[in-house]
Amino acid sequence: MQSTPRSLPDPDELLVSGLVRNDDHRPNWLVQAANPVSYEVRMVDGLLDPARPDLARAGTTELTDERRFIVLDKQVERHYGDQLRAYLKAHDLDPYLCTLPAEERNKTMDSVSHVVHELDAFGISRRHDPIIAIGGGVLLDIVGFAASLYRRSTPYVRIPTTLIGIVDAGVGVKTGVNFGSHKNRLGSYFAPALALLDKSFLATLDERHISNGLAEILKIALVKDERLFGLLERHGGALVAARMQPGSAEGDVGQEVLERAVHGMLEELQPNLWESDLQRLVDYGHTFSPTIEMRALPDLLHGEAVGIDMALTTAIAHRRGLVDETEQRRIGAVMRGLKLPQHHPVCEVGSLADALEDTVRHRDGLQRLPLPVGIGSARFVNDVTVDEIERAVAVLAAGGLDAR
Amino acid sequence: MQSTPRSLPDPDELLVSGLVRNDDHRPNWLVQAANPVSYEVRMVDGLLDPARPDLARAGTTELTDERRFIVLDKQVERHYGDQLRAYLKAHDLDPYLCTLPAEERNKTMDSVSHVVHELDAFGISRRHDPIIAIGGGVLLDIVGFAASLYRRSTPYVRIPTTLIGIVDAGVGVKTGVNFGSHKNRLGSYFAPALALLDKSFLATLDERHISNGLAEILKIALVKDERLFGLLERHGGALVAARMQPGSAEGDVGQEVLERAVHGMLEELQPNLWESDLQRLVDYGHTFSPTIEMRALPDLLHGEAVGIDMALTTAIAHRRGLVDETEQRRIGAVMRGLKLPQHHPVCEVGSLADALEDTVRHRDGLQRLPLPVGIGSARFVNDVTVDEIERAVAVLAAGGLDAR
Repeated sequence: MQSTPRSLPDPDELLVSGLVRNDDHRPNWLVQAANPVSYEVRMVDGLLDPARPDLARAGTTELTDERRFIVLDKQVERHYGDQLRAYLKAHDLDPYLCTLPAEERNKTMDSVSHVVHELDAFGISRRHDPIIAIGGGVLLDIVGFAASLYRRSTPYVRIPTTLIGIVDAGVGVKTGVNFGSHKNRLGSYFAPALALLDKSFLATLDERHISNGLAEILKIALVKDERLFGLLERHGGALVAARMQPGSAEGDVGQEVLERAVHGMLEELQPNLWESDLQRLVDYGHTFSPTIEMRALPDLLHGEAVGIDMALTTAIAHRRGLVDETEQRRIGAVMRGLKLPQHHPVCEVGSLADALEDTVRHRDGLQRLPLPVGIGSARFVNDVTVDEIERAVAVLAAGGLDAR
Repeated sequence: MQSTPRSLPDPDELLVSGLVRNDDHRPNWLVQAANPVSYEVRMVDGLLDPARPDLARAGTTELTDERRFIVLDKQVERHYGDQLRAYLKAHDLDPYLCTLPAEERNKTMDSVSHVVHELDAFGISRRHDPIIAIGGGVLLDIVGFAASLYRRSTPYVRIPTTLIGIVDAGVGVKTGVNFGSHKNRLGSYFAPALALLDKSFLATLDERHISNGLAEILKIALVKDERLFGLLERHGGALVAARMQPGSAEGDVGQEVLERAVHGMLEELQPNLWESDLQRLVDYGHTFSPTIEMRALPDLLHGEAVGIDMALTTAIAHRRGLVDETEQRRIGAVMRGLKLPQHHPVCEVGSLADALEDTVRHRDGLQRLPLPVGIGSARFVNDVTVDEIERAVAVLAAGGLDAR
């Protein structure tokens, strides 16, 4: 893996900034400016070890005092609450801890309002009291959204404690909540001051939540990283069982998998942080899954719905000759090894056609649907038909990509 | 008035974009990018005249069809609803009109949710169906906020129909709603695709709402435009009576006043669209007024609260020797001519001290309080005391800046 060099802008693409006034019969003004964004994503081991300063310093400026506003997932509080309080005490910090039950069904504006009430009660300053969010993807999305809205933006720090949080919600700039039956219908692009990724939090997760995160890792592998796919193929089951922790005979494969997944994700996100381009590789697995996930609630986790979408689109790609028989079986076998489902009763053709229609609106009139091409690359298509969806569903209903 | 030339960025201030990876024991990544923003503010006469294409084309792209999503203030519907429908019909457009009762007391997340429901019902596309907002500052703030949140940003067009909307909410990038007792506590920075300013809407406003907008114009005059102050001094009363419309013996003074106010506002906003600098000239009159306005609800309009704040801070500036006796009297006389109040019963010292404390939090720990220096310039101070506030309140309670 190579570092991408710090790039200077192309002279033809210099961002223009200024105010231009034209006077015709009446004047008009052209207002141009660019909002610079910069944030760090840092991997650390043992974030709650009092010897590590990362968490104590996270998001601070020279004006920050000892007060800290922290929103904690209810489950994280149960497993790590005492350790966190001991850490903060060791650093002479004065925490204001709010606990939030963060599940998909309460990923709503009401939860955002709850965080805003707490911010008012704490009396947070405009720029130098960081909001620290510790939890899974849902919690990070809710708290990030509240931070972005509060006084039109208040700095925040993302500390994901789930695998899907570490490789997905924790590293990007998107925040949001569900609205009605629509997933993430409301939200913002708002970069954290810092994201701290510590895989030791994963040790207390159940296997299902490891699988959930591995779905997003498999996504990156399928569309752009064949070596990562190979690692999942050889070590998938062991990674689930060991919760990505080191110490097995395989060395620290979990660490390499995480680094490749985060790096691949950031390579895709950085040039397109505000989604000016709606043709996004990282949308692989996210065409049908928003509808599948919402209609199956609370049955499927996000990554599980993404897994079903990847199975479905692999079957479509296979029928188009983009993925051969062996590759389709290998993909199916990896999903099985990662304990990801390939089917759910809500996947009937009508629902999936609705899902595609909603996604077309979300992608401004075109499908822009990434399909795998072999393993490790993808292409975008705009012409997937209901008939193709129906045939793919039949494959999944009959036992999945790797059925004999 | 001169055009500001289109400026190229200083080579030392080139915006850096890219992904930098560093590998220590564990890797970290620095993500850097800049979000370019560009929007037009256009003055037009007779926006609803079917001969004018501005409104029909506003916010469209080559993918836009004949459907239009329009949110209309209830009052605007009453005065201009039929004319608007006739205009849309003449352009073969198919409108989806929502009416919103937009007053300060329903500038809430509930109103935003209402607009979002309507957007879902309309089935708006991601980037090529413009959301068109026609109304006062409150309506523009609510609809702009909904647009910024919907799918993390959907293009919108601002058409202010009040004077305060034309010179303030209509030309910038801020959106927002109140939360609890706090004004604009939640919001976003989200530029419209286009702002269309048509002063003919002002003809149906009552005098009080003209005065309300003139307060923000007086603000620009006081901090940076002595000529504009002179225009208000000579023509203030006539401008209120004529609702800024042309045709009096004075020629089109209303037009010059509007152009200077909008130009001055944009000159201040453009270099600081995201408020990276919290020391803002346009915050003049906005130190005590958020609290005054909220505590006096529904007694004071926004501009009236701003007027009281300007009277208060002029008295403070006078006592500091920044504004002399004659200047203080002239400012008081202009406020009287514009029919702006200089006092309200909620202005007791305790409340104003609370207001200053909240503003200090909002300005990240410092007062950053603009005080007028003579007429047409200002300076920032950080050391206003409760004693100074008390003496200023006494001046206002005793009859105002121009009392004999």
